[in-house]
This record gives sequence, structure tokens and C-alpha cells, in this order.
Amino acid sequence: MSRQNVVRLSPSTPAYAVCVLGTEIILDLSGGAPENCEFFTISGSQRVLLSVSNVVITTEEWATVCKPLSDAKSVLVKMVSPSPAEHEDKVLVSYYRSGEESPTAKAVLYVTGIEASLEVDIYRNGQVQVPKDKQAKDQWVWGPNGWGPIVLVNVSPADLGQRDNEASEPSPCLFYPEIKNLSRMTLNLQGPSCILKKYRLVLHTSKEESEKARVYWPQNSSDAFKLVLGPGQHSYTLPPLEKPLKETFYVEATEFPSISFPGLISYSVSLVEESQDTSIPETPVYKDTVVFRVAPCIFLPSTQMPLEVYLCRELQLHGFVNTVTELSEKSSSQLASVYEDPNRLGRWLQDEMAFCYAQAPHKTVSFILDTPRATLLEDFPMKYSLSPGIGYVTQCTEDHRVASMDSIGNLMVSPPVTVQGKEYPLGRILIGSSFYPSEESRAMGKPLRDFLYAQQVQAPVELFSDWLMTGHVDEFMCFLPTDKRSGNGKDFLLLLASPSSCYTLFEEKQKEGYGDAMLFGDVRGDQLLSNGRESRSISKLLADEDLRKQNDYVEKCLRLNRTILKSELGLAEEDILDVPQLFCLEKLTNVPSEQQSEKPLARPYFPDLLQMIVMGKNLGVPKPFGPQIKGTCCLETELCRLLDPLGFKCTFIGDFDCYLTAVGDFCACANIRRVPFAFKWWNMKP
Amino acid sequence: MSRQNVVRLSPSTPAYAVCVLGTEIILDLSGGAPENCEFFTISGSQRVLLSVSNVVITTEEWATVCKPLSDAKSVLVKMVSPSPAEHEDKVLVSYYRSGEESPTAKAVLYVTGIEASLEVDIYRNGQVQVPKDKQAKDQWVWGPNGWGPIVLVNVSPADLGQRDNEASEPSPCLFYPEIKNLSRMTLNLQGPSCILKKYRLVLHTSKEESEKARVYWPQNSSDAFKLVLGPGQHSYTLPPLEKPLKETFYVEATEFPSISFPGLISYSVSLVEESQDTSIPETPVYKDTVVFRVAPCIFLPSTQMPLEVYLCRELQLHGFVNTVTELSEKSSSQLASVYEDPNRLGRWLQDEMAFCYAQAPHKTVSFILDTPRATLLEDFPMKYSLSPGIGYVTQCTEDHRVASMDSIGNLMVSPPVTVQGKEYPLGRILIGSSFYPSEESRAMGKPLRDFLYAQQVQAPVELFSDWLMTGHVDEFMCFLPTDKRSGNGKDFLLLLASPSSCYTLFEEKQKEGYGDAMLFGDVRGDQLLSNGRESRSISKLLADEDLRKQNDYVEKCLRLNRTILKSELGLAEEDILDVPQLFCLEKLTNVPSEQQSEKPLARPYFPDLLQMIVMGKNLGVPKPFGPQIKGTCCLETELCRLLDPLGFKCTFIGDFDCYLTAVGDFCACANIRRVPFAFKWWNMKP
Repeated sequence: MSRQNVVRLSPSTPAYAVCVLGTEIILDLSGGAPENCEFFTISGSQRVLLSVSNVVITTEEWATVCKPLSDAKSVLVKMVSPSPAEHEDKVLVSYYRSGEESPTAKAVLYVTGIEASLEVDIYRNGQVQVPKDKQAKDQWVWGPNGWGPIVLVNVSPADLGQRDNEASEPSPCLFYPEIKNLSRMTLNLQGPSCILKKYRLVLHTSKEESEKARVYWPQNSSDAFKLVLGPGQHSYTLPPLEKPLKETFYVEATEFPSISFPGLISYSVSLVEESQDTSIPETPVYKDTVVFRVAPCIFLPSTQMPLEVYLCRELQLHGFVNTVTELSEKSSSQLASVYEDPNRLGRWLQDEMAFCYAQAPHKTVSFILDTPRATLLEDFPMKYSLSPGIGYVTQCTEDHRVASMDSIGNLMVSPPVTVQGKEYPLGRILIGSSFYPSEESRAMGKPLRDFLYAQQVQAPVELFSDWLMTGHVDEFMCFLPTDKRSGNGKDFLLLLASPSSCYTLFEEKQKEGYGDAMLFGDVRGDQLLSNGRESRSISKLLADEDLRKQNDYVEKCLRLNRTILKSELGLAEEDILDVPQLFCLEKLTNVPSEQQSEKPLARPYFPDLLQMIVMGKNLGVPKPFGPQIKGTCCLETELCRLLDPLGFKCTFIGDFDCYLTAVGDFCACANIRRVPFAFKWWNMKP
Repeated sequence: MSRQNVVRLSPSTPAYAVCVLGTEIILDLSGGAPENCEFFTISGSQRVLLSVSNVVITTEEWATVCKPLSDAKSVLVKMVSPSPAEHEDKVLVSYYRSGEESPTAKAVLYVTGIEASLEVDIYRNGQVQVPKDKQAKDQWVWGPNGWGPIVLVNVSPADLGQRDNEASEPSPCLFYPEIKNLSRMTLNLQGPSCILKKYRLVLHTSKEESEKARVYWPQNSSDAFKLVLGPGQHSYTLPPLEKPLKETFYVEATEFPSISFPGLISYSVSLVEESQDTSIPETPVYKDTVVFRVAPCIFLPSTQMPLEVYLCRELQLHGFVNTVTELSEKSSSQLASVYEDPNRLGRWLQDEMAFCYAQAPHKTVSFILDTPRATLLEDFPMKYSLSPGIGYVTQCTEDHRVASMDSIGNLMVSPPVTVQGKEYPLGRILIGSSFYPSEESRAMGKPLRDFLYAQQVQAPVELFSDWLMTGHVDEFMCFLPTDKRSGNGKDFLLLLASPSSCYTLFEEKQKEGYGDAMLFGDVRGDQLLSNGRESRSISKLLADEDLRKQNDYVEKCLRLNRTILKSELGLAEEDILDVPQLFCLEKLTNVPSEQQSEKPLARPYFPDLLQMIVMGKNLGVPKPFGPQIKGTCCLETELCRLLDPLGFKCTFIGDFDCYLTAVGDFCACANIRRVPFAFKWWNMKP
């Protein structure tokens, strides 16, 4: 904040002033001018910058530029650097009568420059720097020409307890190497010691902002860092000032942006003049403010390359585990194991957790965002399975029913897209929702939805998924990475489930004489029985009018989503591949009676081809157990016909139980950490 | 939201489709094309709009434009108006072999156009209109080229109880003439009745938005309006559709924008296809969405002309009441009386209440915004004194101590300003605050501050006022309306309190030989005694070193504010007038012991010239009871010398007690309702 002080100059007595860098002194020459004087000249010492009537006077012009006294009300004095000693710098004014060559009188201002500032990584290049424009520091501006520092949320699993329990004391000390995740903020105070001693420095923020971040100060005596600002502590007075200082503070956030927290945290240092008289209060004289933005939580689409695969090994799903292990090797990603969480009531990795990342110029952190159904749990086994350096954050949800749409599993991320000229360089979040509210409709709860919108950088799109039993969009869509295609230049494909493609395929096969080929011919009878399916021929399936009506309904629901996706992601028909998939309508069973509903909901009729695991060009696809034609499943053949030319390699995973078990036991037993976007979020304009 | 459906055409059987206006049908011709056909022609009936490969085919071109079949995947069908009867509209396609003149085959699509839409005052001209671009309705855009409807908060005093007590039922009915304050929203459904009967309409919003506004529907049978959407009711299914309809709904908001409510409320109508089969759920087919913005609460500067003056008549302040009555007559404003509120603990009108207004194209409403200290009161006497049509709204505050800065009295509004190119056509709100937090610092509480920021259109500036006992900025500053001045063209002046001007004035008078003239010479001894003042000569005042030190401190505090004001309002020195005013430091007395503080705070030493009542060019100024020189008070003379040339007429109000009583009894016994800004808030870009 720019500050100005008025100093009235007079020839009789020298004036004295302290000028804080970044402020101006208004020099009023007119009051003290001798009678009949009409002109003045002005000069200053080396560190002084003078301007008269809004025009800067260069050093060469000093004492030569003769100005009329009418300009004497708008003389500004600034300091370009702090003074080495008290009264070391000065401004000289000479008053002239009209026509006379020697001055009638002279006046002097002794000025002492001091500096009090906060310096941060303002240009987002990892370096703490002094900005070109001091005023700019109290704004945070998006985009490639923007500025303003960034602070990361502490996502270390050890910090989890603190966030959950606000009453607990934050750790008063931090040790290296944790400190390297934190953002630096340098407090710089310069000037003659005898002047500085008259002031004190207060580092402060607002009460509300202090709840969202912590500021640490290294202690000379040890490797430890003292907590100076944080929850319950929004102002810190530095020890009495003895001499110039340059101290580095370290900042970390404790919360991601939310509906009630826009993500901006400002810190100020106030320079306060101590009172020499107990009956007079101290006076604030200058404030320097910097604004940090908390790095948002960014989600990744399946089109990004995998880094690490987390697998639920406890399950007796050898086919799944073996295939995913093999695919991990092919795509050179690490494989980590997770033990099933007994508190999850059978819900596994993908349904309630997502890998995210947060990025600052000095550091990128990956972490799990967990939306546990049982929020009162004190501990989360998942966090003990994470690789070193991977964080863990929980986010509250409201709806803890079975088949709830209120969890992080009910979202997908699109690859980067451009829609009618508007760029989404980090893609858009796709949330499953109901199209309109009704008594039975389910949707993502407000806290989680608000959280997703508040991150700003991946503007969410709401899709219609309430027609599905799981309600999750991953049952009807999937993004695959492709080479940049000629035409519109997109480097991804959207796969959409298509019952009509499946019927067309089966009708062709019937025409070709394979009407007797059996769906589920290879599946054990007890497996079919326990999953409510039966082995049926193509002809029987095609003759099932009920199934056809159900799929006509599903087709309408899918069309609605297709058109939302085309319009909100700027997709053309050639960006979409229809994947044969049948659904059937069932009522929600296996749930407490009060959660049961009259409305039938859709489930995949055979293992869902869309729920594939995407690891670059290697795809782990649920084996559909479709009708065998010339020794191979015609659904597999069809999928390969669609994807092979694009360079994909499909591996079909034969765990039938894994894909078609009752609600409450969805298979989501792998979760993949992927390569962050190359694009830096602060270079976009949301 | 634009919707698309795919229809596959084949020469063997005609196809049928329903097309909702605003949606497209993708016609896939390639699937059903006879073998060896390479070209096609296409034509449609009058209400049909066709485009092939993103190029619209005009009526003249129909059937003459021969397209290769490779284009047949991107044929789009739209309806420009609803069909009068089922299958009344059609699209004809003819397939040609290469080189042949007569078509090999023909195919037909029978299409029925229906319309379901919400129409509002989208262009903010008071008229419900169909927008040029249907897509635009789901956005609300600021600025003169923007669009989007506006809804007013119900500020009628009768509605107060409902806002305070959320559990109480909102009134289910409204009667004319209240309805004229509400915004209209027309639901339009058109098409053949036999088709419409297959659908139903659901009017809906989100659960959260439904808490912020109410939608009423006129009942044919009476003058009453039924509440269809509102708190606890976010979806309303219309009665079964029998025939086309055009129904007007009326919308009112119940809350101003706040930190957790950005002020946008969207309403959608969903067209849902009823299922003909009980085993199949209904299908949503189309959704039309409009977004309203709640008109913000706008504050007015003292530079706006007065309309109505509210006065506290119970007080024995004849001079004040008489003068204000007289000024009201001069400025042709109405005078209304208010009885003192026994619950206010002596705080009067101006300290806890402010006149505001909210504006929509169809209506402007004025209202009192009250920040009562006793929030648990069930009733507010003030609201019974208001003129008809003036609203009343309460806003919670946190700090209910005596010298609290947490009330609406702790703000002022600047006239419209331009700061470094950025326009503030409704001025900026000026909030009194502490410069930095400390144990003793006071500031406006977060709820009220957040409320002010959330209105968006008068971007607040925080000033340093914590050095004052009242903490309110009106003790050191005041805006006056002037004629447009040459130079920078501003049409207002900022008056700032200036102890140094006062000392300069007194020193001059002493030099002129009036050192013995007495301050407070005319004030009764008992009045002085009860207010802790004594009658003193100019020479004694000038010799009082303590008073001078105190005013040096005040001067520093004022300089800080002067520079904030210059920088944040874009003011030059010539826009500011220094008004002689002395302050003195006292400790907070007359308050409960736990609220007492060690820090001395500033109070006006003599009745505060800055606390004038501004009614155009007529000013009601507290009489300072300054030293009499040649029969008139030199402070009055000085103020007149400054203001008379600008056309102002100062009337000095001689109620000493009114201006210098102990804290807790501030005089703020008049509050003025002023002319709203001519500028419409929606034409700015915050």
C-alpha cells in the first residue's frame, strides 16, 4: 500500500523525515516560501527520487530546472534504497525572485530511507524476488502474464489428525526435509539501526485466513521451526528491532479452496512507530501485503500415463491381479499393494478415493483424496500403504447410503478440451447427477460438489447418471489416449456404451448363422446363479422384448449424456466410439429396507467393457463372456476391431465375479496414480 | 441446454421423431442407403431447418443440392416453431446412383416440433422476452452488453419474521399489489395436445437455491398466488398436460448475496417423457434453464440528494430538530419522525441503521438495513415508523460491545470514482477498521464485512479508524456534492478533519491579537462539566503541550487515511479540503469494566464539524462553540470561508449536548433516505 506524508518546508528550520521505501513524501514548499519569490529549484542526494507536477526530475536536471512556485504543492520525494545512516539523504530547495540569479532563500529536508517489505515467489519461477511494481503484491492474477505466489496444502498423512480435529494443537515445530514443500516468504527490513529501533514489526493476517494456513520461522539455535501464525494466532510481533534483518518464513496451507474459502491468503507486515510517551498510542506507518493462492486439488483423466498402480490383493481375484500386474510392467509403472479396508463395507479403492495432485512452482505433490463413508473413523488403513511422499486428504460427504452418488468415485475427468473458443487446459470434471430432482433422485452432496467447483481449474459438467444402479459415470464412458488425429487434431477418444451397437452386432451374427452362440457359455452355473444371470443364445437375447425395452430406455439416457458431452466438451461425432454393451433394469437389493426404491435402475448385463483399466495403449478390459464365434467372443472381436487400428492392445480380464457382483461389492479394486499435466494451472484463466 | 438425438433413416420404413425446439436431431442417412448410391438430396416442410456438414440448406436449395453420401452422417434437423399437429412436418431424402437422374430410393422422417421454455426479462428492460440465443439463458453476464434477469429481495417489514425464523412457514399466498415487486418467469409449452400428453413438466432448482427465493403461481380461481418453489421445496411437477400452455410465475428472493451465496439462482423446466410401461422409468428429454441474479444491496453517499429525513423526536434537542426540519423544507425532502427505541441502549438512528436500495428493471425498492446490537429482540420499533413502501432488513453482527465497530454506522460511501482506469460508477464503500490486529484492536465483524464485499458493486476500502473512540469514519471525513469542477472534472469534495489546520488558524488569530478569545465561551458550566470540557482561551489551548502531542498523533492517523483515500478513490490534493478540528485522547469510560481498555482513544475536542448533515448544498453543521472574534466564532467563519465560494450554505446547530456526550450516547439522531444512483448496477463489471 502506497503511503504519503506531507512535510512543510521552510527556510528558517531544516525539516526531518523518515521515508519508507514504496511511499512518497509530499513536500509542501509554498507555505514556507519567502515573500515575492516566484520560482524554485530542487535537488536531492543519490538515493532520492524527485518529481514535480507528476514529472520525474532526473539527476542531470537537478538544480537546473527552475519551476514556478505554483508547482510547489505537488513535489514528491521517494527513496530508491534505504539510507546507510540517519539524515544521510537530503533534499535542497532554493527560492528565487523573478529576474534574480542568486536565491533569496534555501531550505533543506533531511530524509532517512528505510525499507520494510515481504518478498515471495511473485513470478512463480521458484525464486523469491522483488516485484517490478510494489503495488502488484496485494493482488493475485491468473494467466501467463499474471503474478502472485502459490502455497501448497500440507497433505502429509501425519497431518491428517490435525485437520480432522481442530481442537488439537498444531505441531509447533517442523524439521527438514518437510520444509522444502513450503513456500518461502522473506521479511526484509533495512535502514540505520538508530531509526529502526523506534519501530516495531507486526506480521499479521486476518483471523479467518489464519485458520487456513501456518507460517513457520526457523530458529537460529536449532534445525527447528517455530509456528508464528496459524489457527488461533493471526498476529505476531517480532522481537524489538536492533538492526537490519532479512528473515525467511515458511508457509503451508491446511485447507483446499472451498465455497467459503476462495483460496487466497494474504500476509502483511506492518511497520509501527513506537510512542515515546505512554499517554500516546503507537502509530502504524506502513503496511506491505502479499497474497498467496492455495494450489487447487487437480484430478487426472485416464488419458494420462500411469505412474503407480494400487491393487487390492486380499481379494481372490487372481485373473485381475495378474493381468493388472502384467500391464503395470508393460507400462513401466510401479505396483503397490493395499489391504482391504474392513471399515469400507466392501467398497474398494476406486469408488471412494481418487489420486490428485497439487502444484506450486517449487514442488508438485500427489495425494489420495478419500471420501470415506464412515467419517467418524479415526484411522484409515489406506494411508499406511502409500509410497513415500504421497499425501492423504479426506473430504466429508453427506450421503452414506449404499449406491450413493456422493463420493469421489462418481466423477471422471476429461482430457484437455477447447469448447467454443474457451480453453480447459486441465480438462473438465464430469460429475454424475440426476437430471432433475425428485423424491427418489440421488446426486452428489453439496459439500463435495462445492469442493469440486471451488478448485476452479477444471470447471465441472454434470451428467445424467441417476439411471444407473451405481450412479457412477464410469459405467457408460471412458477416455482413451490416441495419437493426434488428423481433422480436428484431438488426441483422445471418448468411448460410450451403446446398447444399439450391441443389438446391431448380435443381429449381424444371427444373420451370419450364429444365432445359437451362447452368451455366458463359459461361465460356471453357480456364478451365473449367484449373479442373477443365465446362459442364453443370441437368438433368445434378440427375442427378449423386455430386455430390448430396457435397453431402449438406457439408449435414451445415453443419448442425453452424449449430447451434454458433445456440447460441454466440444466433441464431434468422430471423437466418439460406440462400444457394444447391454444393460438390464433391476431394483436395488442387498440394502437396508429404508434405502430400497421402487424405481428400477440399470446394471451392465454382461461385464462392462467400459470399465476398462487404461494404461497408455494397454487396456485391461473386463471379459464380457460373450457368444463364441469361431472360437472367440464376438464382443471381444468387435472391441478389438474398433481399437486395434488405433494402436491399442486389449487384455481381457476373466474374473466374472469381479464385475458382476451385487451392489455394495462393486469391483473397483485398482486405483492408478498418473503423470500430472505438463500445463501449470496458474497459467490458465478460469 | 442443447440436445441432440440420432435418428437412422431407411427407405423401407418411415421414421418418426419428436423434436423439442432448441434441440437438434442427427439424421443418419448412411445406414439405410441402398447399395451403390453415392448422392442424396434432402428437403423439409416449412417449420424445418436443415443443415448438412454444418452448412444450413435454404428452402430454395432443398432437393436441388445434391450431396455425396459421405456427408450423410452429419445432417441436422431443427424445428423453428412447434408443429400444429402430430407428424405435420417431414423431411424427405432421395438417394441417387452416380450418373442417374431419377432417385433409386426415397426415405421420409415425420417430425413433430414441440416447445418447452422459460422466458424472463433477459435483456433487463422490464419485458419478458425470448432471447436471440437460447444457449445464453443459462448464464448471467454483467455489463451494458450483458444479459440475464434480476430478482429483488422481499424487504417488506412484514416479511421480517420469516427471515429470522426459518422454521416458520412462508406465506403460501401473495396478493396484488405486492406481486408487482416480483420478477416474472413465463413457462411456455407448445405443440399438438396428443404429443404433449405423453410428457410432464417439472419446474425445479437446487435444494440450496430454493432456500434463497420463492416462486409463486397465480391461481385462476382467485386473486391469490400459490407458492410452488421455496425453502424446503425445490421441485414442482405441473398438473398433467392437456394442451399447450403459457403460464406466468412470479419470483422473489429472500436473501441478499453473501459469502456463501453468490447471488445467482437458476430455475429449470424439465420435459420428461412418461413411460408407457410400468417396468420402465420415465426419461428426461429436455431442460431449459434461466439464471436470475439477486439485486445487491446498494448504499448511498451523502452527495446524493435527500428524499426523506428520519428524526428522533423524543430527544430534547430542539435546536437539532428545528434546524433539520428547516433544512428538509429547503431541500424539499419529507420529514418523518421516529420514536427512540428503548432496546437500543441509547444508540440512535445513524449508528446501527442505513438506508439502502435494491434495483431491478421493473422496480426500485428502498429499505433500512439494521444491524441491531440486541439481535434476539423479536420486534424493531423503527419499522413501524417507515413510510409506506420502504422496506426493512436486519443483518447480524458479532460484536455487541459499546464502542463496537461492528455495525452499519461504521461505513460511508464515496461518490462514483475512477481509479487508474477502473470505474466505480456506484462509488466505493469505506469501512472503518484497525490497520493491523492486536489484542485491543476493534474491527467490523466478518459476517457484516463479508456481506458488504458480497454485494460486489461498491468494492469496499478499509480505512484506519480504530484510533477513534467511536471507531466510525464519519468523525473525520465527509463528502460534499459540488458542481463539476474544471481540472479533473470531479463533482464532489472530500472534507477531512485537520488538527494542523486548526492550530494554524488559532496561531493566526493569536498573532492578530485574539489570544484571549475563549473556546466554549457560550456554553453553560454544567454542560461543560458533564462533558469533561472547560472554557479555555486560544493562547491556553496553544500552550497545552499534551493536547498538541495528542493532535500530532491524530494527524499521523489522518495522514494514513488521506493516503489510502487518495490511492483507493483516485483523488488528487485539490479534491480534498482540510477542515479545522481538534481531537483529544480519552479512555473508554461509561462501559462495563471488562470492555475497558488501557489504550487512549480519540474524541472530537469540540463538536465535530465533519459530522454535518448534507442535504444538497444545505449543510447542517454541529456548532463548534469556538472562540468569538468580532462577534462570530472563528471556526464557523473559517468553514464558511472554505465552503461559501462553492455555493454551500452552512447552518450551525447549537445543541452542545447532542455532539459531545459520553460514549454510548453518540448523536446520530437523523438518518436520510436519498435519491438512488441514476446508473444501473447491472451495467457495470465488478
